[in-house]
Amino acid sequence: MAYSDALEDLSQLLGPRLTRGEAERAAHGQSESWFAPAPPDAVAWPESTGEVAAILKICSRHGLPVIPFGAGTSLEGQTLAPMGGLALDMSRMAKVVALAPEDMDVRVQPGITRGALDAELRTSGLFFPVDPGADASLGGMASTRASGTTTLRYGGMRENVLGLEVVLASGEVIRTGGRARKSAAGYDLTALFLGAEGTLGVITELTLRLHGRPEHVATATCAFPDVAAAVATVTETGQAGLRLARMELMDAAVARAVNAADDAGFPEAPHLLVEFHGSEQAVAAEVALFEAIAEGHGASGFAWASREEDRRALWRMRHRAYWSILAGRPGARAIVTDICVPVSRLAEAIAETQADIAASGLAGPILGHVGDGNFHAILMVDGSVGEIATAKRLATAMGRRALAMGGTVTGEHGIGLGKAGLLEEQYGPAVATMAALKAALDPQGILNPGKIFRAPPAGQEGAA
Amino acid sequence: MAYSDALEDLSQLLGPRLTRGEAERAAHGQSESWFAPAPPDAVAWPESTGEVAAILKICSRHGLPVIPFGAGTSLEGQTLAPMGGLALDMSRMAKVVALAPEDMDVRVQPGITRGALDAELRTSGLFFPVDPGADASLGGMASTRASGTTTLRYGGMRENVLGLEVVLASGEVIRTGGRARKSAAGYDLTALFLGAEGTLGVITELTLRLHGRPEHVATATCAFPDVAAAVATVTETGQAGLRLARMELMDAAVARAVNAADDAGFPEAPHLLVEFHGSEQAVAAEVALFEAIAEGHGASGFAWASREEDRRALWRMRHRAYWSILAGRPGARAIVTDICVPVSRLAEAIAETQADIAASGLAGPILGHVGDGNFHAILMVDGSVGEIATAKRLATAMGRRALAMGGTVTGEHGIGLGKAGLLEEQYGPAVATMAALKAALDPQGILNPGKIFRAPPAGQEGAA
Repeated sequence: MAYSDALEDLSQLLGPRLTRGEAERAAHGQSESWFAPAPPDAVAWPESTGEVAAILKICSRHGLPVIPFGAGTSLEGQTLAPMGGLALDMSRMAKVVALAPEDMDVRVQPGITRGALDAELRTSGLFFPVDPGADASLGGMASTRASGTTTLRYGGMRENVLGLEVVLASGEVIRTGGRARKSAAGYDLTALFLGAEGTLGVITELTLRLHGRPEHVATATCAFPDVAAAVATVTETGQAGLRLARMELMDAAVARAVNAADDAGFPEAPHLLVEFHGSEQAVAAEVALFEAIAEGHGASGFAWASREEDRRALWRMRHRAYWSILAGRPGARAIVTDICVPVSRLAEAIAETQADIAASGLAGPILGHVGDGNFHAILMVDGSVGEIATAKRLATAMGRRALAMGGTVTGEHGIGLGKAGLLEEQYGPAVATMAALKAALDPQGILNPGKIFRAPPAGQEGAA
Repeated sequence: MAYSDALEDLSQLLGPRLTRGEAERAAHGQSESWFAPAPPDAVAWPESTGEVAAILKICSRHGLPVIPFGAGTSLEGQTLAPMGGLALDMSRMAKVVALAPEDMDVRVQPGITRGALDAELRTSGLFFPVDPGADASLGGMASTRASGTTTLRYGGMRENVLGLEVVLASGEVIRTGGRARKSAAGYDLTALFLGAEGTLGVITELTLRLHGRPEHVATATCAFPDVAAAVATVTETGQAGLRLARMELMDAAVARAVNAADDAGFPEAPHLLVEFHGSEQAVAAEVALFEAIAEGHGASGFAWASREEDRRALWRMRHRAYWSILAGRPGARAIVTDICVPVSRLAEAIAETQADIAASGLAGPILGHVGDGNFHAILMVDGSVGEIATAKRLATAMGRRALAMGGTVTGEHGIGLGKAGLLEEQYGPAVATMAALKAALDPQGILNPGKIFRAPPAGQEGAA
C-alpha cells in the first residue's frame, strides 16, 4: 500500500478516529447522484482545527489525497475519492462556536448541518436563510457555493458567509474575511474558498450572516396551463419589484410524482410554490399583486398556507420531491443536473430541455429555483450503460444550452467530477487561471484531486 | 532610461495616445488624499481590450510596471506610481456595451463613471446603486471593492458585479462570471479581481446587476443629542428589520463644515441622513417606524425631502462634505481613513476615535455609512511632517481599534500604499496566501507594484 506510512502516522494521531474499515470506506465512497462508487483508503474524524492541521501536514508529507466530507449530499461527486486517499469527515466538528444576536452573525464549525443550525437558532429570533434542499453541512454548502429556495431574496452562500477559517494543504491555518459587514482589505479569500469544492483548503470554521425571522410568512401553490405561463409570471413579478422569499417551479411530472408519494392532490400541471416574508401588511399587499399577475397568466387553484405546520408540510414535500420522483421508478437512480440562465431565456431553456428529454425516452422531471433562472432536471436511469450515456448526453446539452443563452453550466451543484469539461467550454483560458491558483495553494495537488479540473491542472508542478 | 525600449514599442502601438509629457505624468501621479506625488514614466490611453492586451504583452516583455487608472479618486494612493512605470488611463474605454433591461443587467467598459452610467440608465427605469461618493470609474470601483451610501440595502461592488473581462499580466484575456444571477462553476474569479486594486489583472469590461428605480423615495435629516444616540437609532432600526436605502452619519464637525460651505443651516449636532425606497405605502410605514425609533433616542428637527430636486441637493451636500471640510482650513490637505466594525461596537469605536482626535490637536470630522458599521475620519493636516505623522498615528490607531473590535482596517477605501502594514496585522499568514496568488498570476510583479503588499511579496520569484 503506497500510503501505509501516512496512514500509520494518522492512526497514531487519531487512534480509533481513523479507520480503514470496509463499511466506512464504502459509506464515504458513494454519492447521492449517479457516480460509480469511489471509496477512499481511509476515513478520519478530526475534532479540532489543530487536528485538521496535523492531518494535512502528514498528508502533505506523504502526498496522500485529502477529500473533505460534510454530509455527503453533493450531486456532482464532490466527496468521492477517484484517486483514493483520506476522507476527512467533519461530522465531529459541528458546534455553534459563538452567536452574536446583536450583530446578527454566528460562528459555526463546518460539520453542523442546516437543520441542526436552524434548531440552535430557533429561540434567537434569527435564521440562516440558505436552503439547498438537502440537510447539507455548512462546510459543504460553503464549498459548493450553495444556494437554493430562498436565494432570490436572501442570497446564497456567497452573500451570507462573512469569513472563514481554513487549513491550507501545508497545514497552515488562515482566517479570511471577518465580522464586519463589508471590507476592502486585500484579496477576497473568503469568496475564493467558497465554491472551491475543497480543492484549495479545508474549511474549519465559518462566520455566517443571520437574518431576522420574518414577522409574517405566507406560502402558496398555484397551477399554470403550461411552463411558459409560470415563467412569464416569474419574470413579471421580478419586473414589478416584488421581492418574493421563494419562487419554485415544479413541472407536471413533478406534480405527478409528489401526488403519488405524498397524496398531495395537485392538478397534473406545472406549479409555482411561492413564499412571502415581511410585515402582515406588506405580505398582504405583495400577495394581492402576485395573485393578479399570476391570474393574468392563467394561474388557478391558489392554495395559501399561513400556519407554520402547513407551510412546513409544503416545503417538506418540495424537499422530498427528489425522492418522490425516484420512488416512481423502483430501482432507478437519477442523474441530477442544474443550469442557470438569464431569466429572459428561462422559458426557452426549459422548453428546449423538456423537448430534448421527451425525445430521449427517459423520464426527466424538472424543478427549480426559477426566480434566479436556475432549474434542475432529474434524469431517471436504470443504471444501464445506454441510459447513463443518454442522460449524460442530455446533461451536456443542457450545459451547452445554458452557455448559448449567456448562462452557466451549474447554478448551484458545482463542477465536481461531472462538469469539468463543461467548465472548460464555459471559461476557456480562465480555467488555466483557476489552475494556476490551485497550483499556488496546493502545489502537490493533494486537496480533492480530480474535482473541478479535468486532468491534473497545467502547471501543477509549480505555478506560472 | 531603463524602460526606453518598452516605451518605444508602446509609442509605435499607440502613437499620440502614449505620452511622456510632464503635465500628464504629474496629473496621473497625484492623489486626492495626502500621499506624496509619484508620477509614472508615461501615460497610455488604450481604446480597446485588444490594445490593453498588446500593451501588457509589451510591458511584460520589458518588465515595465503598469498602473491601471480610472478617475483617480481613490484614497489610499492606489493610482500612484512609486516604482514608476506606465499609467494605463482607461478614460477612452467608457462605453455602455449592452443594456439588457429584461434581465436588469448591463455590460460597460471600465472607464465609464458612476455619473455617466446613471445618465445612460435614466430612461430605462433601472439604476446601478453603488455610490462611493466620488464620481469614480466603474473599473476603479470594482478594483477597490467599493461600496457607499446605498450598500445597506443594495450591497456594494461585491454584490453587484456579475462578471468581468480581465487582461492578465501576460496579455491573455479571460472572462469571469457571466450573466446568470448565480453560478457554482469553478473558482469565483470575479470576486478575486474585485478589490485586487489592479495587482492581478486589468479589468476591461464589467457586467453589472441593475435594480428597478424605486417607485417612491423619501429622504430626511434629523439631529441627535450625541453620536451614541444616533448610533443607537441605527442599531435599533436594524433589529426592527427596517431596510433603509441609506443611513449616513455626520458628526457635529461635519454639520459645522457644511453649514459654512453650503449655508445648510444644520444645528451643530450629530445628524443622520436617511433614505427609504419602496412603494408609497411601504415608505410611509417605514418612515413612521423610523421616526418613532429616532425620537426615542432624542432625535429632533426632522426635515423630509420627497421632491427629487430637494433630495439631490441633500446628497450633493453629503458628497461635497469632504470638500466643505477642506474649505474650512485653507491650504489644508486631509488624510482620509475608514474602518468598519460590527454594528454593536460602532458607538464605542466612534467615541474612542473622537477622543483620540481631540487629544491630538488635529481637526478630524467623522462621517460614515453607519448602517454597515463603516465610518471615515477626515484628518486635516497642513502638510507639515509633524501633522502628517500625527494623522498617520491616528489612522493606525483606528485600524487597530477596528481589529480589536472584530472589524476590518478598511471598509471601502482599500489598502493601496497606506495600509499594507495594517493588512498584515489583520490577516497575518493569510497575507502570504494573497501573495502566493499574486505570484501565480503576475510572476514578474509588473501589475501595480507596491500596492496591498508591503514589500515585493514573498514568493514573488515563483509560487508556493
